[in-house]
Amino acid sequence: MDQRTAGSEEWRALAQQLRADSIRSSTGAGSGHPTSSMSAADLMSVLMSKYLRYDFDEPENPGNDHLIFSKGHASPLLYSMYKAAGAITDEELMTFREFGSRLQGHPTPVLPWVDVATGSLGQGLPIGIGVALAGKYLDEEPYRVWVLCGDSEMAEGSMWEAFQHASFYKLDNLVAILDMNRLGQTRETMDGWNGDHYASRARAFGWHAIEVDGHDPEAIDNAYSEALGNDGPTLIVAKTKKGYGVSFLEDVDGMHGKPVTPDREEAALEELGGTNDLRVDVHKPDGTASTGGGSTGEADLPTWELGDEEATRGAYGAALKAVGGARDDVVALDGEVSNSTHSQEFAEEYPERYFEMFIAEQQMVAAAVGMSVRRYVPFASSFAAFFSRAYDFIRMAAISGADLRLSGSHAGVSIGEDGPSQMALEDIAMMRAVHGSTVLQPSDANQTAKLVAQMADTSGISFMRTLRPKTPVIYSAEEDFPIGGSKTIASSDDDEVTIIGSGITVHEAIKAADALAGENISVRIVDCYSIKPIDAAGIQAAVRATGNRVVVAEDHWPEGGVGEAVLSALAEDGGEPVEFRHLAVTKMPGSGKSEELLSSHGIDAEHIARAVRELVG
Amino acid sequence: MDQRTAGSEEWRALAQQLRADSIRSSTGAGSGHPTSSMSAADLMSVLMSKYLRYDFDEPENPGNDHLIFSKGHASPLLYSMYKAAGAITDEELMTFREFGSRLQGHPTPVLPWVDVATGSLGQGLPIGIGVALAGKYLDEEPYRVWVLCGDSEMAEGSMWEAFQHASFYKLDNLVAILDMNRLGQTRETMDGWNGDHYASRARAFGWHAIEVDGHDPEAIDNAYSEALGNDGPTLIVAKTKKGYGVSFLEDVDGMHGKPVTPDREEAALEELGGTNDLRVDVHKPDGTASTGGGSTGEADLPTWELGDEEATRGAYGAALKAVGGARDDVVALDGEVSNSTHSQEFAEEYPERYFEMFIAEQQMVAAAVGMSVRRYVPFASSFAAFFSRAYDFIRMAAISGADLRLSGSHAGVSIGEDGPSQMALEDIAMMRAVHGSTVLQPSDANQTAKLVAQMADTSGISFMRTLRPKTPVIYSAEEDFPIGGSKTIASSDDDEVTIIGSGITVHEAIKAADALAGENISVRIVDCYSIKPIDAAGIQAAVRATGNRVVVAEDHWPEGGVGEAVLSALAEDGGEPVEFRHLAVTKMPGSGKSEELLSSHGIDAEHIARAVRELVG
Repeated sequence: MDQRTAGSEEWRALAQQLRADSIRSSTGAGSGHPTSSMSAADLMSVLMSKYLRYDFDEPENPGNDHLIFSKGHASPLLYSMYKAAGAITDEELMTFREFGSRLQGHPTPVLPWVDVATGSLGQGLPIGIGVALAGKYLDEEPYRVWVLCGDSEMAEGSMWEAFQHASFYKLDNLVAILDMNRLGQTRETMDGWNGDHYASRARAFGWHAIEVDGHDPEAIDNAYSEALGNDGPTLIVAKTKKGYGVSFLEDVDGMHGKPVTPDREEAALEELGGTNDLRVDVHKPDGTASTGGGSTGEADLPTWELGDEEATRGAYGAALKAVGGARDDVVALDGEVSNSTHSQEFAEEYPERYFEMFIAEQQMVAAAVGMSVRRYVPFASSFAAFFSRAYDFIRMAAISGADLRLSGSHAGVSIGEDGPSQMALEDIAMMRAVHGSTVLQPSDANQTAKLVAQMADTSGISFMRTLRPKTPVIYSAEEDFPIGGSKTIASSDDDEVTIIGSGITVHEAIKAADALAGENISVRIVDCYSIKPIDAAGIQAAVRATGNRVVVAEDHWPEGGVGEAVLSALAEDGGEPVEFRHLAVTKMPGSGKSEELLSSHGIDAEHIARAVRELVG
Repeated sequence: MDQRTAGSEEWRALAQQLRADSIRSSTGAGSGHPTSSMSAADLMSVLMSKYLRYDFDEPENPGNDHLIFSKGHASPLLYSMYKAAGAITDEELMTFREFGSRLQGHPTPVLPWVDVATGSLGQGLPIGIGVALAGKYLDEEPYRVWVLCGDSEMAEGSMWEAFQHASFYKLDNLVAILDMNRLGQTRETMDGWNGDHYASRARAFGWHAIEVDGHDPEAIDNAYSEALGNDGPTLIVAKTKKGYGVSFLEDVDGMHGKPVTPDREEAALEELGGTNDLRVDVHKPDGTASTGGGSTGEADLPTWELGDEEATRGAYGAALKAVGGARDDVVALDGEVSNSTHSQEFAEEYPERYFEMFIAEQQMVAAAVGMSVRRYVPFASSFAAFFSRAYDFIRMAAISGADLRLSGSHAGVSIGEDGPSQMALEDIAMMRAVHGSTVLQPSDANQTAKLVAQMADTSGISFMRTLRPKTPVIYSAEEDFPIGGSKTIASSDDDEVTIIGSGITVHEAIKAADALAGENISVRIVDCYSIKPIDAAGIQAAVRATGNRVVVAEDHWPEGGVGEAVLSALAEDGGEPVEFRHLAVTKMPGSGKSEELLSSHGIDAEHIARAVRELVG
């Protein structure tokens, strides 16, 4: 189809093909969401025929628009579009949902034209904000971000975080298309076909909103045209029918996520005018723009003198600023606590690369994912406890293969007076259980700086847990701390027990060792700064060398943290019995001074020393 | 103060006292948020003097209003109100943030007048929705729910989930009070003092909205009065100044979370008219209403015959319906996937006790917390993967001491074609790392039913992970499955290896044992249906009896799941070397058939058998 001369007849024919292919692929698979695809077919037909600028032969072309299916379950529609664009064959289309196929149940970047995995509702739009932020403020490229949204997902709060941020940042390169088909999985949505509800909300959030009949190609054309002329983000509220085009599917309840059964497939296709093989030459972007960012120098990291007192969160901020100075593809985001996490130091030096995400952790992580789509190197920070707010986004980011760096401050009971709501005590477990993640917890400032520098080059999702209180600098600025390593602080042939600490408990372990030395008990201290990957060989060697006796102390719940990571590491070489003592937080903390809490939760020097005495006694 | 004759002078004097006490307590502590307290003092002064109905001597009085500080960092204000109400002494007020004090940095239910812990922003309002839902639809009591919100937390999407649900459920017993003091932690909020932004958004979400000067007691009085006459929820947008009343604090940036230094305390108090000891006789509720729910019979649980095929999610739904039949305090909530989780069976039988939370998992968990405040027994369900969306709410619910039952369906790669976005592979790690939690994963229908019945009586946060595919019934309906137990399926004196499975892998273990029996390798199978608490003694005994050889197979990432729970259990009795093989999901899955995925991820019968052969070979 030549899109320059195409009109509503051609658009309608293409839409019917997209519907037919959505049915064919999902009936072939025996599962999938054809009706949720059919409602949006006209919207996508017009978009790909006239508005989308995308080079399917060069998905990395930085001038390409970005099309995100926030309603990822409409994957049959997306894949049918790829067929119509000539990106995949009909044969591949029919592999939908098969083992080994790129055409998974929900889109993932296994396909080169998919930016991010969707399928957990309410994520595509916030991620689109990140891509649009990059387009407007970093790339300064004219690409547009189109996000197809479902009406059920408008119940997700993350969508409204996106509405706020898109408006605040005046994202005129963003168009959200709401496929208002009325029906959710089991029932009507809260707002049904009340398009004015969505439109008035969008306007109240500072967006331009257009209501349109989502099955009228000319009206859709006009809406897109209008959307492009705004000085801010636009929401197109399209009234549609689920299963549109087939009488026995159209606006019928109970058909969500159900393919047409093979015996009814022919009848359905007949109503759609049969199968077809229309081909759309999607507009390619004008010219080839430059890729964003890219200079990668060696960071001039800050250093501290032995014995200095500095919080690792402070060192994080200073190191992030240094890394930002060496690489102009590094960007920072924060959840409006930048003077606590210390990302403020970066923000003050590089305001054009700092994005304030306010108290909206889901949007913060989503924006970082969107920026990683554009090959930036995002560092996002908040209190470690509050990353639990964005866990679904982090989980999905791993499926997207995104490269994110997260920094969570205020680890554990050591934060003191603020109380348990501000204490991260589950973050290590949470972050270890992310596919391909890296989990770090430095204990001093120089170590922090070295690890921050490495995070910039680390793929996947890396997480650094930092401390609120100041801790003494125990390592010289010359030492190296490779990710996956550990540091043995004290060691002799007489060591009877290995003490493994991480973060604050490293300092408690050192104090315990001093006390024990006075009792002629020699211990080995291992600083487990890299919790995942963990230095399994180093830990095995230390424990084996100290009579297979080990004490692990951590400022975290007992489950899924350093202790269990150590047990997994020790289980790898098996064969030798280990006497294991695990000191972790086991009761609900309250407020108090850092020392009081470390003591009352049994993870301070005194308790570590006591555990050692029990093991050797 | 006699509130019936009080007027703006008295209200103003009380507000000044609340401010002075907020300063005194936080200066005494050396930390805290006095300026965030001072902005809302007039709002709370009028509320407690004239509108709040609360019996401080009887916090369990079911007629009491509920006052939730969604901006939990304004705890100095809340505690100052408690002093003014005579609930605590000035002496106790001055223990703010001390170790052992009930007056923690952020409010928790350690205090009998606090319903829920706050301090993670954006949670108080959604929880208030739950309390209001209980009031309107379950208790049918006239109590009101007042929620004090901060303007920074309006950036949290969860607030807008609450706005949608409050309107959909016509919660005329809910008043949200927005303390619009303009300043966040590091800068101005996105909307500053543009009260019309908030008001128009609230209206677009179907709320009644009132804009008011938050330092004018008479205007506040009028606003509360107007709020009570509406047929839906009301938002009062109060324009305030952070630090109001003290010249060097008022609307000054950079003062968030900072106490007045001791050297300036006297000057601050002087501006506020000095210290005071006004006492408010807060209205008690009329009469004593009955408590909600309460009948507790024995559930007539569904049963299945050995060899029947049933998905554990299906058994969950049937058992939940049975438990609902026996106890009228059981309520169910679902994230609009009730035909997937099978909570639909409860919904159809007891529609008056079922609450559709749509695709808003944060609001779902928050509403369950709110209902637990009113002593209901909530069961909330969604896909297990999507509980990651609500992890911060679950974390905070544990701090609240809430009793919640969560059911997550579609565990692991065994779900098949839908792909990784729908596969829970981190949920066990996430839920184990919740303080006091219970984590269950049944493998058959009869076991599921027995566990669901126990969940109703389980305190804290209990989580059941259910399977999408049908599995054969392997246990008779007469067997018991106590939480904290395990079930040994096959056992003989010749057993050479223990295989530990949970959920789907129990069935793979049985198939593996059959295959190995043909090779004269005898194995012991342990069904670890209770992952936390885990049957440490039972697992130790099994492993010790089988030559200290153990294979753990689980449909989960390797971190924080069944394997590490087993290692922790084995580490407890220490002393003996264990040969440990851990089969878990280690690469990113795609779509495919359940069997294909179990095989390709190395957790099916064949891989289990192979691991056993390696251990004995």
